[in-house]
Amino acid sequence: MDVMEFFKKSEGNWFSHRTGHYLGARKQEAGKSEVSFTCYERDHPKVLAVCELHQVDPASVAGGAEVTWTGTTAFDEKTHQNMAFLVPIPDKYDPLSGLILRNKGYAEEVPVAGRYRMHADESMTLVTENSTTESEERLWFASANLRLRTGVMKHAGGFSITTFCSEIRRLPPEPAKAEQEVKS
Amino acid sequence: MDVMEFFKKSEGNWFSHRTGHYLGARKQEAGKSEVSFTCYERDHPKVLAVCELHQVDPASVAGGAEVTWTGTTAFDEKTHQNMAFLVPIPDKYDPLSGLILRNKGYAEEVPVAGRYRMHADESMTLVTENSTTESEERLWFASANLRLRTGVMKHAGGFSITTFCSEIRRLPPEPAKAEQEVKS
Repeated sequence: MDVMEFFKKSEGNWFSHRTGHYLGARKQEAGKSEVSFTCYERDHPKVLAVCELHQVDPASVAGGAEVTWTGTTAFDEKTHQNMAFLVPIPDKYDPLSGLILRNKGYAEEVPVAGRYRMHADESMTLVTENSTTESEERLWFASANLRLRTGVMKHAGGFSITTFCSEIRRLPPEPAKAEQEVKS
Repeated sequence: MDVMEFFKKSEGNWFSHRTGHYLGARKQEAGKSEVSFTCYERDHPKVLAVCELHQVDPASVAGGAEVTWTGTTAFDEKTHQNMAFLVPIPDKYDPLSGLILRNKGYAEEVPVAGRYRMHADESMTLVTENSTTESEERLWFASANLRLRTGVMKHAGGFSITTFCSEIRRLPPEPAKAEQEVKS
């Protein structure tokens, strides 16, 4: 499975349940989000805009994916909305690994790039570093409608967080059921 | 890495932080345990006792491991103490996978056997089935002192739980520091 095949399996709407373990404090933090994932061909204007931002040749990219999420964390109980646009560039001589460019980072205003690797067990690992954080994530499908993610984040301050997400696909209502509901 | 090498890396005392995601209810449940893990050679009386229980030839087993844990769950806030003795039997023609025999199951009084597989990325997967539950776990070391575990459990009633454990090794106090403390 290559990176765009993985992205295409991720397309759709998901409910994401996230837990963080704060290793030093032995506390946990929970969050819930609604996530939407959409893939784009490499010649789409949104993909070309990220290529332009990072000054890379559009011919070298595999495509793009837009992720939007709306969620709450236990920290402030506010609803957060965010978007990221991901553009993978497979390595020339080892296309199962490569760079993933973003429109911008979660916390930083400068665009962040990570490195991905596709594994024989159909999982994907993603390593992202910025000035304050080093993060390694692993993503895989337990089934077509259940995606799992684990992560280890090390902060420059020395503390570490492990994270776990269970992501359940939001299925469209079955036509028969919807019809029944209308009838009743 | 074979199964006993994995077990030997697990030897010692650990603080285990566990979270379960109840997929249908979208709730989470937390637990904390102190875990102790000890390995035994294949000719140790504790290993031989499990062989006897399952009626297997002691020559076919790789060794044994005793796991004890003392912990709390958010369910009842009581402290639970438990022990399991694990005995892996590598497959004859594919020793990186095999059976893991136990002295008894978590919930059942009959001894439970699971199937393990060691992977190229040094992770171990463990599949366990009994009359009411089907469970698949993945265990790996993020570092020598941080072990992670994810699991997917399906109950016969139809509901599923995903689980995540962050296990942090309890290090003995550094001799220099201990000496300093005595001196000061």
